[in-house]
Amino acid sequence: MPNFMEIALQEAEHAAYRGEVPVGAVLVSSTGKILARAGNRTEEDSDPTAHAEIVVLRQATKKRGSPRLSGCDLYVTLEPCAMCAAAISFARLRRVVFAAYDPKGGAVDHGPRFFSQPTCHHAPESVGGVEEKRACAMLKKFFEDKR
Amino acid sequence: MPNFMEIALQEAEHAAYRGEVPVGAVLVSSTGKILARAGNRTEEDSDPTAHAEIVVLRQATKKRGSPRLSGCDLYVTLEPCAMCAAAISFARLRRVVFAAYDPKGGAVDHGPRFFSQPTCHHAPESVGGVEEKRACAMLKKFFEDKR
Repeated sequence: MPNFMEIALQEAEHAAYRGEVPVGAVLVSSTGKILARAGNRTEEDSDPTAHAEIVVLRQATKKRGSPRLSGCDLYVTLEPCAMCAAAISFARLRRVVFAAYDPKGGAVDHGPRFFSQPTCHHAPESVGGVEEKRACAMLKKFFEDKR
Repeated sequence: MPNFMEIALQEAEHAAYRGEVPVGAVLVSSTGKILARAGNRTEEDSDPTAHAEIVVLRQATKKRGSPRLSGCDLYVTLEPCAMCAAAISFARLRRVVFAAYDPKGGAVDHGPRFFSQPTCHHAPESVGGVEEKRACAMLKKFFEDKR
């Protein structure tokens, strides 16, 4: 199987080239097929909802013709925020694997810890810290260059 | 000024005709101009993120050419979920007015209470319970008819 986090990191790098906060995501079917891959597009699309996770969810659900993607897994380079965590829950994903933890905006292991809320009706398995150093380095460099 | 919640309720009713959970939303500029109005489209668009709030946010930010809508207000017939509450925060809206409270899935006055989280970096003013009875009646009828 391909290294899906590696592909998500490539998408994050492409996002940085486009002037976006470098976050990338890959959506993978239960058989290991890549359904969608994308980077953050909030600035380019003038869309506050166009986080990498939302972009791949929308692409993959459209392809499938269903708002649900049961059995699918998401790889993303940053801990999902509350918007993305809730969208992941609505799409009924099986597993979320993320790289960098995000104490300031994350909603899986920080803040609202959405998947543990009683109002979360489907909680995927979640695994954080995969390729954490590389994802953190990319984010750090991006924000340093911005200053 | 028009009754914006009335327009949101009309959008919710149209959503029900299309077989969607009846939720409607209207996005209004600081001068009272309607920037976008829409109902829930999750089933029709096969998009788990196509809640009424997200649909109007995406339409209005695209029109404005900016992912931020500072000074704008959102009227919606149901308490926003965590996905929508976070998107509202990212778009920097000034105020959210909603009709029915949603103890099972709401994230403003229930569950994660997103706007009160330390990881929420912009919290709009929020007002719930406006035209609550009509919005509740519409939702109740929709789910009863589904059975």
